[in-house]
Amino acid sequence: MNEKKEVGITAKKSSNFVDWYSEVVIKSGLAEYGPVHGTIVFSPNSYAMWEEVQKAFDKMIKETGHKNAYFPLLIPESLLNKEAEHFKSFVPEVFWVTHEGEKELTDKYAIRPTSETIIYYFFSKWLRSWRDLPILVNQWCSVLRAEIKDTKPFIRNSEFLWQEGHTAHETEAEADKEVMLILDFYRKIAEEYLAIPVIAGKKSELEKFGGAYYTTTIESIMPDGKAIQMGTSHNLGQNFSKPFGVKYLGRDNLEHSAWTTSWGISTRLLGALVMTHGDDSGLIMPPKVAGTQIVIIPIIKKESLNEVTQFAKELRGKLSQKFRVELDLRDDVTPGYKFNDWEMKGVPLRIEVGPKDIKNGVVVLVRRDTKEKKEVKHADLEEEASKLLEAIQATLFLRAKESLKSLITEAKTYKELQEVIKSKGGFVKINWCLGDACELKIKEDTNATSRVIPFAEKRHGKCIVCGKDTEAVAYFAKSY
Amino acid sequence: MNEKKEVGITAKKSSNFVDWYSEVVIKSGLAEYGPVHGTIVFSPNSYAMWEEVQKAFDKMIKETGHKNAYFPLLIPESLLNKEAEHFKSFVPEVFWVTHEGEKELTDKYAIRPTSETIIYYFFSKWLRSWRDLPILVNQWCSVLRAEIKDTKPFIRNSEFLWQEGHTAHETEAEADKEVMLILDFYRKIAEEYLAIPVIAGKKSELEKFGGAYYTTTIESIMPDGKAIQMGTSHNLGQNFSKPFGVKYLGRDNLEHSAWTTSWGISTRLLGALVMTHGDDSGLIMPPKVAGTQIVIIPIIKKESLNEVTQFAKELRGKLSQKFRVELDLRDDVTPGYKFNDWEMKGVPLRIEVGPKDIKNGVVVLVRRDTKEKKEVKHADLEEEASKLLEAIQATLFLRAKESLKSLITEAKTYKELQEVIKSKGGFVKINWCLGDACELKIKEDTNATSRVIPFAEKRHGKCIVCGKDTEAVAYFAKSY
Repeated sequence: MNEKKEVGITAKKSSNFVDWYSEVVIKSGLAEYGPVHGTIVFSPNSYAMWEEVQKAFDKMIKETGHKNAYFPLLIPESLLNKEAEHFKSFVPEVFWVTHEGEKELTDKYAIRPTSETIIYYFFSKWLRSWRDLPILVNQWCSVLRAEIKDTKPFIRNSEFLWQEGHTAHETEAEADKEVMLILDFYRKIAEEYLAIPVIAGKKSELEKFGGAYYTTTIESIMPDGKAIQMGTSHNLGQNFSKPFGVKYLGRDNLEHSAWTTSWGISTRLLGALVMTHGDDSGLIMPPKVAGTQIVIIPIIKKESLNEVTQFAKELRGKLSQKFRVELDLRDDVTPGYKFNDWEMKGVPLRIEVGPKDIKNGVVVLVRRDTKEKKEVKHADLEEEASKLLEAIQATLFLRAKESLKSLITEAKTYKELQEVIKSKGGFVKINWCLGDACELKIKEDTNATSRVIPFAEKRHGKCIVCGKDTEAVAYFAKSY
Repeated sequence: MNEKKEVGITAKKSSNFVDWYSEVVIKSGLAEYGPVHGTIVFSPNSYAMWEEVQKAFDKMIKETGHKNAYFPLLIPESLLNKEAEHFKSFVPEVFWVTHEGEKELTDKYAIRPTSETIIYYFFSKWLRSWRDLPILVNQWCSVLRAEIKDTKPFIRNSEFLWQEGHTAHETEAEADKEVMLILDFYRKIAEEYLAIPVIAGKKSELEKFGGAYYTTTIESIMPDGKAIQMGTSHNLGQNFSKPFGVKYLGRDNLEHSAWTTSWGISTRLLGALVMTHGDDSGLIMPPKVAGTQIVIIPIIKKESLNEVTQFAKELRGKLSQKFRVELDLRDDVTPGYKFNDWEMKGVPLRIEVGPKDIKNGVVVLVRRDTKEKKEVKHADLEEEASKLLEAIQATLFLRAKESLKSLITEAKTYKELQEVIKSKGGFVKINWCLGDACELKIKEDTNATSRVIPFAEKRHGKCIVCGKDTEAVAYFAKSY
């Protein structure tokens, strides 16, 4: 048997988080850099998780009346330019198409950095009367934003995959309701599928989406103490509908501009998943989104090759009815090598089966999260596997919740805030007047920005920067 | 009740096919032109059909070991340029990115017109040993090819949606097998889902994919007598693996270049669907891919409003367990308007229900294809709806088969070929030596090209152009 060199992950998560992350992403086969700066391939291992996210979210939005569509990738500059704030915030990162074959274009085209402008171009044609409202569409696509500085697979790429929902409504109240409906779907995706706990709330004026009336967000914190934005849902007010002519004849027979919303989650979620759950052995995939939930590794000796292979194949057939299963029949590496390899790839549950196990009517189950082993009778296997996968999902979420909790620190004074950001990192919870000036001061002094003004928390106090009376609580942090 | 003007389709399919097609596409809400020449929005009505195609094909390829992934949209010119034939055939239609924000690029980027080159960039990194083979990946994405001349929604666009599969194999025989496996999946999608009969075979040397060893295709003919390519599956030989370094250490411990294949179907299929099945009332969607399979139209009079609405909602709830259902509760148009509207949109089955029907325990079912009406008891509704949808699917396929048959003409002489192409159009079946010169002569004289050299037909005869002895039969036609 041709034993390969044990590669595995060499950096430690606790002491060298940056290198650890890159190693896990590359070695577990999630992504690799492309030839254009900041682009990556989403390999089958990461794309399969994205497909599970798609399935789950697609179901939620379809059940609530949203429909998928696909809008053009190319947006003429003149169209992108119609909402000034929006244009300003995206134009430094736009990839510009200037030539079609040999022909030079007069109005150059932007590759979509987001699709509000091109979608409102169509909404303005579709919308006539209040009876046409609401319009509820979504698209799954890639968007491009040139990352000139640091890039990081999944977290910061020049091209990433996402969904972008775009809706138009009669009233502000209906747009508000839509924004919150979707934000709650995002919370479900993060917490119940990716096992990543989040804090839901509003963005500050400085941190809201370019052109938005307001932005809501779900935020989490990574083990290195940096915050990550997991999904945003914007009420765009009438800021876009007015310049783009998204208007309708109302119940009052007068012309009105629609209230619009937009919202998105992206493959950035996969980066947060790697950071949150991985360990020094590699990736750990939450069972609900794992492309492979169970890997079967036969312990084969020469004299039992046929018997064990046959048994393992039957096992795969049976388990595949209910789970996403791989069977590793490679004959050029040892079972030990395979154990490490699949641990690195983060498959939540491993089944080991050898000739003795077959004789005894058992298999061995090994959890990826705790590495606990358990002998299980053949008859109980399916039920036990189901239970263990649920337990792994729950354990990962609990662990992440503990971590999140440990990375929230209250600061009563400005000095305290500065110290926490500098030493421990994580979310610093403060009373804040919500003013731009105070946020800018914090940013200048500490590099931290307001990440989220949580819906669930209010507390009378004084802004720790300017001392003004306030009810507002906010979480500040350095962020990805 | 505010009766709207009856719009409907004004052009006739039989006498003005070109205008009829455009009207159906726009008025049934399938697509609309975007601001960039040749781009369209794939509206919810057409995108829903594409999603059904995706579901069906995705299942087929996953069951045979293929995995989805996503590769970068941007391809540096230097990479696209590595296979000369390939580059030459795509470069006139490439959209070029020359600027990233303000920065001018030194090596400009092509927006993918197809992804062989960027995918082989990654394959060359992934592939080490024969044990890594086969590599079987697929991606769902959009590709861009600038259409400078005529554009036609779905049929000829500057951006369209497709899947592109890319595989690498040890041997020519395995690549051959893959090509034929996929081509047969494509035949199934066309015939069993879209209800469009096709002829499967090879492409001529002049018509094969740029850089391919050989190309296989499924072809159909539209009611106006023009052929349409429905899907292609290419054996690329070692033509790409050599310049891109897609090589591996073989079982013999020597280095080999892999055999690669690529294959694609696109949203062009939706154009063929419209052309094949539509009639003077509008679109007809085959039930298997219809976004909406059944529409319920309550016949409401003021005094029965609550009762009928309630019944219709319950009906929707029940039928939605099994079918894709819409309930039309608009109160500003008459039932008659709704009938026409949903006929135009091509929903295969309509359910009418009024107060009298409720009392009698029946509903009325109306088939979109034949417009036949049938009264059905409430208890039999689900079974009857299933049967009718199957019958509609079968009828559409049979009709299309008849049409295809009527548009195949044999030509024994060159003069006959010229006459048929000029008068009737459609496929002209001839004996042909397979030589480039004869194909070029036909093209120059008639504008027709070889569409397919069918696998299933061979016949000893003489090439009708040059008179050489040949076994080969080919179908020539003008094409989209």
